[in-house]
Amino acid sequence: MSLVSVPTAEFDRRIDTVREQISEADVDALCLFSPIGIEWLSGFHHLQTERPVCLAVTDEEVAITVPRLELERADSDEFPVLESTYVYYDYPGSTTDESTYYRHPSDTPEEKIAEMIDDLGISTAAADMDGAPGFWGYSGPALSEFAGIDVETVEWIEELRTAKSDVEMELMRESAKWGNLAHRYLADYAEPGKHELWVAKRASLDASMAMLNTLGPRYDSHLRGGFPASCGFLSGPNTALPHGLTENRRLEHGDIIITGASSNVGGYKSELERTMFIGEASDEHRHYFEQMKTLQTLAIDTAGPGVPVSKVDQAVHDYCKEQGLLEYTQHHTGHNMGMEGHERGFIDRGSDEVMQPGHAYTFEPALFIPDVAGYRHSDTVLITESGTEEITYYPKDLESNIINY
Amino acid sequence: MSLVSVPTAEFDRRIDTVREQISEADVDALCLFSPIGIEWLSGFHHLQTERPVCLAVTDEEVAITVPRLELERADSDEFPVLESTYVYYDYPGSTTDESTYYRHPSDTPEEKIAEMIDDLGISTAAADMDGAPGFWGYSGPALSEFAGIDVETVEWIEELRTAKSDVEMELMRESAKWGNLAHRYLADYAEPGKHELWVAKRASLDASMAMLNTLGPRYDSHLRGGFPASCGFLSGPNTALPHGLTENRRLEHGDIIITGASSNVGGYKSELERTMFIGEASDEHRHYFEQMKTLQTLAIDTAGPGVPVSKVDQAVHDYCKEQGLLEYTQHHTGHNMGMEGHERGFIDRGSDEVMQPGHAYTFEPALFIPDVAGYRHSDTVLITESGTEEITYYPKDLESNIINY
Repeated sequence: MSLVSVPTAEFDRRIDTVREQISEADVDALCLFSPIGIEWLSGFHHLQTERPVCLAVTDEEVAITVPRLELERADSDEFPVLESTYVYYDYPGSTTDESTYYRHPSDTPEEKIAEMIDDLGISTAAADMDGAPGFWGYSGPALSEFAGIDVETVEWIEELRTAKSDVEMELMRESAKWGNLAHRYLADYAEPGKHELWVAKRASLDASMAMLNTLGPRYDSHLRGGFPASCGFLSGPNTALPHGLTENRRLEHGDIIITGASSNVGGYKSELERTMFIGEASDEHRHYFEQMKTLQTLAIDTAGPGVPVSKVDQAVHDYCKEQGLLEYTQHHTGHNMGMEGHERGFIDRGSDEVMQPGHAYTFEPALFIPDVAGYRHSDTVLITESGTEEITYYPKDLESNIINY
Repeated sequence: MSLVSVPTAEFDRRIDTVREQISEADVDALCLFSPIGIEWLSGFHHLQTERPVCLAVTDEEVAITVPRLELERADSDEFPVLESTYVYYDYPGSTTDESTYYRHPSDTPEEKIAEMIDDLGISTAAADMDGAPGFWGYSGPALSEFAGIDVETVEWIEELRTAKSDVEMELMRESAKWGNLAHRYLADYAEPGKHELWVAKRASLDASMAMLNTLGPRYDSHLRGGFPASCGFLSGPNTALPHGLTENRRLEHGDIIITGASSNVGGYKSELERTMFIGEASDEHRHYFEQMKTLQTLAIDTAGPGVPVSKVDQAVHDYCKEQGLLEYTQHHTGHNMGMEGHERGFIDRGSDEVMQPGHAYTFEPALFIPDVAGYRHSDTVLITESGTEEITYYPKDLESNIINY
């Protein structure tokens, strides 16, 4: 059976690694407030709101503080890594004598987190941030203040996430499959007269239902509103804006579109993008399409273990300069990814990072002709011990990307 | 014609208010890094990535620093409030001599923001945060460090957003209409055997297409992946978890569901939630449903201008205590909203805020019977000069919420 979620043993390994780091840094604990960090380390995923959630890992214990409405989930068998749960009622909350209606006395989030810190004997901690972020109206004092401990904000938790394990790479490969299906449906449904939104969402729905019906109940979508498998696109002149919006627009014959497709498998994603044409591609479109394809091939061919990311981005830059295309570039070559849309590091001339086995980069050098059109393919590529492995596999050539309706 | 976006005059008023605050605080400028703050003040909305965006407002000027891929949008007629645009190529970026291929010399984001700060003559600033947030792998020094200015992080920008203007309330009323349509379709499509995801997404798609076709091209969805009008629900025992997930589950006769529906109009939202039943409601369901409905009526009847939020939450609490329901509550009565899912303030016993005209609260006191079911209606209610105005209007009574398929 293909892997569709992160096994518990993987979380145990991550906790072990974090304990080594804590020991090296000579602190008592790691405290995390970012939902992605908490999910990566413990598996516990939740809807981020103004209500703080804090995970604390010491040599001895893994504990979490959650609002009342996450208590049953935090305590459930679904997250065996969590050993003890502290709970406050809600934010901002108050200390009262109404302690009978849930497990712990009524408290503010900060008081409850401080209680957890105290119980665990923490006096020095590394943390992703010094207190909960100001999300959806949260406002509160720093962890160091309200818990009275020394807090050093560190970035090594994000760095630990950069190189993917075998499990993570397998989940990303599975993600690429269902992204491919969503993309196939997108191409099947796109035709003149159809609304952008209708095409993208029908394709997303049909791919998602196929995914759910194929993988069955063991598929845990982590879904809070989105699609398990999804796609979308920009069309016409709007493609000239890399981060433009889906417009209120219907497709026309000869339109260029830039697509995007992905799926969520155990919290992991992939990225697939194609430049496509409705019915036919003009000579101008063909010209820039081929240039873009050359850039992407060049970038992927330059990549590999031990290669500085700047070398890859520089190769793209140099080719653009030589071809007189520099004015049509608007962003660097790509980014690492996994659980988030983008993750550190970036394939950028200004970065001093070096590609390592387990890095999972998008390769998406692009050309944008202002007010006319944009051209971009994006593929997700794993860096391996010996080279690279492309996990997205939708055809890249021009003829395969003409949508004959 | 109904209002579907924020008029420029409204942004001018907001800028004026901010200038008064700057003057009172005796600083040279307000600097914003949060995408919602930037959109609220200038209209400029963008896809948040690791690339910093900084808006600076002085007595004289409104300027913004954006990555290359947002340049055309920032410079466009769509955002007349923005007077000057500073652009860096990408993050992390580097300073090189390759300055020919876009308007400004190549720079890192921080160098470009510092240049803007310097050009505007800013030496002291209020800011929502001291530098860009650590989103999607961004990491950089504080604004105060890299720009060499005094920065005071302030919360008054969020407080300015708390009381909605007439324009904002009108957009929220329009949002409630299309949320209602999505909710109606949800009820139309739900029946035994249908998958949760299929029902929710088909209803969202059909409501969105109706919305786009009705409002026409002047509707600007601000869409980057979602639906203009959307709905979703939890079903069966999963409703006992307030922030549970859409499961891989098909509906059954007798199921309880808790729905949610909204739409996005000019960046503004509303919130509608109903507790519903597929085919029939058991006596136990009927009992808790009526208790929940009583709680919501009590909360809304207690609310109004000048009423402390704590009084409303306390009324709910007291009724629950009297009825022996306290152990079934998991969160406070509601939250303010508008552009974000939740906004400050919260209808919470621990809050010292007072309801004011223009506040837009959800009223959603809820009961959750562990492992059995949850019961919650949520309505969006504006506080007016004389009382309250409910802008969501889907029927609340039990018989209307039995889905007869």
